[in-house]
Amino acid sequence: METSKDTHVLIVGAGFAGMKAAQVLSRNKSVRVTLVDKNNYHLFQPLLYQVASTGLNPSEISSAVRSTFRNRSNVTVLRAELSGLDKEKKVASFNGDKFSLEYDYVVLCVGGKTCYFGNDQWEKVAPGLKSLKDAVNIRNRLLGSLEEAERLGRLEVDLDQLTSVVVIGGGPTGVELAGAFAELRSKVLARDYRAFDPKKVKVTLIEGGPALLGGYDKKSSDYTKKRLEKLGVTVHLGEAVIDIKPDGVTTKERFIPSTNVIWAAGVEGHPLARMVTDKIDNRGRILVTPELRVEGESDLFACGDMTYFGHDERYPRGLPGVAPAATQQGERAAKNILALLQGKELKKFEYFDKGKMATIGRSAAVAEAGPMKMRGFTAWCAWLFIHLIYLMEFQDRVIVFLRWVWSYLTWQWGVRLIFGAGEVPMSVPDDHPAVKNKPADLSAEAEPQESKP
Amino acid sequence: METSKDTHVLIVGAGFAGMKAAQVLSRNKSVRVTLVDKNNYHLFQPLLYQVASTGLNPSEISSAVRSTFRNRSNVTVLRAELSGLDKEKKVASFNGDKFSLEYDYVVLCVGGKTCYFGNDQWEKVAPGLKSLKDAVNIRNRLLGSLEEAERLGRLEVDLDQLTSVVVIGGGPTGVELAGAFAELRSKVLARDYRAFDPKKVKVTLIEGGPALLGGYDKKSSDYTKKRLEKLGVTVHLGEAVIDIKPDGVTTKERFIPSTNVIWAAGVEGHPLARMVTDKIDNRGRILVTPELRVEGESDLFACGDMTYFGHDERYPRGLPGVAPAATQQGERAAKNILALLQGKELKKFEYFDKGKMATIGRSAAVAEAGPMKMRGFTAWCAWLFIHLIYLMEFQDRVIVFLRWVWSYLTWQWGVRLIFGAGEVPMSVPDDHPAVKNKPADLSAEAEPQESKP
Repeated sequence: METSKDTHVLIVGAGFAGMKAAQVLSRNKSVRVTLVDKNNYHLFQPLLYQVASTGLNPSEISSAVRSTFRNRSNVTVLRAELSGLDKEKKVASFNGDKFSLEYDYVVLCVGGKTCYFGNDQWEKVAPGLKSLKDAVNIRNRLLGSLEEAERLGRLEVDLDQLTSVVVIGGGPTGVELAGAFAELRSKVLARDYRAFDPKKVKVTLIEGGPALLGGYDKKSSDYTKKRLEKLGVTVHLGEAVIDIKPDGVTTKERFIPSTNVIWAAGVEGHPLARMVTDKIDNRGRILVTPELRVEGESDLFACGDMTYFGHDERYPRGLPGVAPAATQQGERAAKNILALLQGKELKKFEYFDKGKMATIGRSAAVAEAGPMKMRGFTAWCAWLFIHLIYLMEFQDRVIVFLRWVWSYLTWQWGVRLIFGAGEVPMSVPDDHPAVKNKPADLSAEAEPQESKP
Repeated sequence: METSKDTHVLIVGAGFAGMKAAQVLSRNKSVRVTLVDKNNYHLFQPLLYQVASTGLNPSEISSAVRSTFRNRSNVTVLRAELSGLDKEKKVASFNGDKFSLEYDYVVLCVGGKTCYFGNDQWEKVAPGLKSLKDAVNIRNRLLGSLEEAERLGRLEVDLDQLTSVVVIGGGPTGVELAGAFAELRSKVLARDYRAFDPKKVKVTLIEGGPALLGGYDKKSSDYTKKRLEKLGVTVHLGEAVIDIKPDGVTTKERFIPSTNVIWAAGVEGHPLARMVTDKIDNRGRILVTPELRVEGESDLFACGDMTYFGHDERYPRGLPGVAPAATQQGERAAKNILALLQGKELKKFEYFDKGKMATIGRSAAVAEAGPMKMRGFTAWCAWLFIHLIYLMEFQDRVIVFLRWVWSYLTWQWGVRLIFGAGEVPMSVPDDHPAVKNKPADLSAEAEPQESKP
């Protein structure tokens, strides 16, 4: 099946860039592609916030990578993690150097990781939202907090920490999370607890900059803030976070008690970047040439969130970390590899900006594409439509669509299990912040409402 | 809201029995119900095998318990685990005695656990299928094995162990699992791997007794065996399992290599049974009176798989462990508690046997109800119809139905993530059974297909 004439391209990472690169390369039958990812699925990250807020199932925004390439016989899919690159010998090793593969070209596209700007100790108490595991952790933790509040509330324990959600970072992810949590508590969970009123669960959004959705039109930012506040979200602008502890968030202005803090304030390059090159920027992203080669390398290409593309004057700080940018880069890298094989000249990458959008809640979104700016119901319909279109390659688009219709009609969000990655402990641990505020001994009390027999 | 006149009924376990008992009791407004479960969801166990075989999502067969009772203000739902019962003081304690509740009556219904008949060491290598965690573990392990086979197959390692599934126990669960795995490998995964032919993944069903579906009509058993064999399942009848190790199963007659063994051969009472009473049978099940009281207790009732009901001459070994039996018991226990409150006489539980059914694969099932016996397509339609009806209380019935329609039309089963409980390690560990059979050093080889540059 394989001859020594085949060119072997190794693609590391099955995100938007890697999937697209594999698709483009696989059309050339003289190329052999090995697509490697540590997970066996491709993740549709734009909808991750809906998994975190109980609206969707993990499988509904994921698809088996090998299933996508079942009819491309020159594509091999492997579940493995890159652990080293011998650029001299052109050999990549995986899984702690347990096995290795020779390559002719490599496309690196493993994405980014949550960036805490030097405060990595916050990661444990304020997880980011980059993976399915993150999303399910966030979901489990919030639902678990509310379960604990239901139990402790009968003891008249102070529930402020347990019934409070804080989202840090007012970009699209932060806005979408805050909006979804606000709807979750006031619409979905509204009648489900006895010891406290879910509608009073406090949702707070903190942004260090002067506006939400930095980079959007001022009208969009203002609208977003107004809509979130209408949903009951407390928005703090221009507040830098000083510290995050298990019991809450401290900013310059205040302390906000919460056992449910989510960090949506920054992304940096995946640690793999440092492993393969020292040409990286101060956020750990690989510096690439206009042709998407790793700077100083001829056989290595890199795309997406793990790179800093400094050749577009519209984006001096790098391209936006959105799916279309990654997809377009994956396509360009693949085409440039094909050009190399055919002795043609490489082309520079040019980002075609399709616009940007963020959803706030039901019937409320903002969308901007060039001079066109939409807000409200129209933007929300556009958001729905575009996300369904992009989910088209997933078998589950029908399911997602129906779940959305169902949610719209009933406010019953389907995925309210405390289950999966990061299952929360059954009982509040002794050092749990909420316990410190308890009025009396918690360890063996009977129900206060009941009279002794 | 609550007065001292209220009778407090504590229901432990939100399975079929507990949910029904809570529903019945909640209709009487002088009763206060606390429904406790260690999970925050009710599980539709009859479809658990479809989660294990990638057909359904965990959330699609689960529903948030508190959501079901949102409009019953006299029902409190708590996520907690019973850890002790002081029958003198009528106080139940939870979560390692972290908190406690007084009660007037208790309904115990936490179900069963997988029984290894004295070989508990097999649990680790041959998990049972009782919980969502079990199901996702089984799914992850099988998909992970095949991922490893894809990687190792390129080295011409012996893949027999990795590409083999063994189900032990030929009751309905074993039959359904074996049939689903057979379809998964030959229809769903058929074209997805390069290093081996998924259609040749070996599925084996081992039953110690002389027939599959013991207790069913002989024609049903024979039909089931024939249909499974048509699907490519190897069926061994009358073979007792002697040992299970990580590399496979040993019976008297043979050794079957497999890293994917599932135990569906027995159920015993939940360990909680021994904690609350010494009136238990040899399978750890609580002995109950005809009125479903725990023998020798006046305030404790018990239902479902954790009990042995020895008062029905049709079932000398106890009632079948099926949903209708548990539901009916939950209803009877609740009604008897209400009778106690009203000074009426308790009624004996009478099991109304609605029949039994098992599905083998597409268009193939068996169903028996009294003298009526169905096989094949008719039985399969009946199975589908009845399971959808029983899922009616779940919001996800529409989604499940659509998933089934989609699966039927396309053979694309949706939930193929290696994700959630029991994520499989990335690489085969050094002591992994499959590695022992490798022809050469695995630790640093280059690809054998490739020529060195």
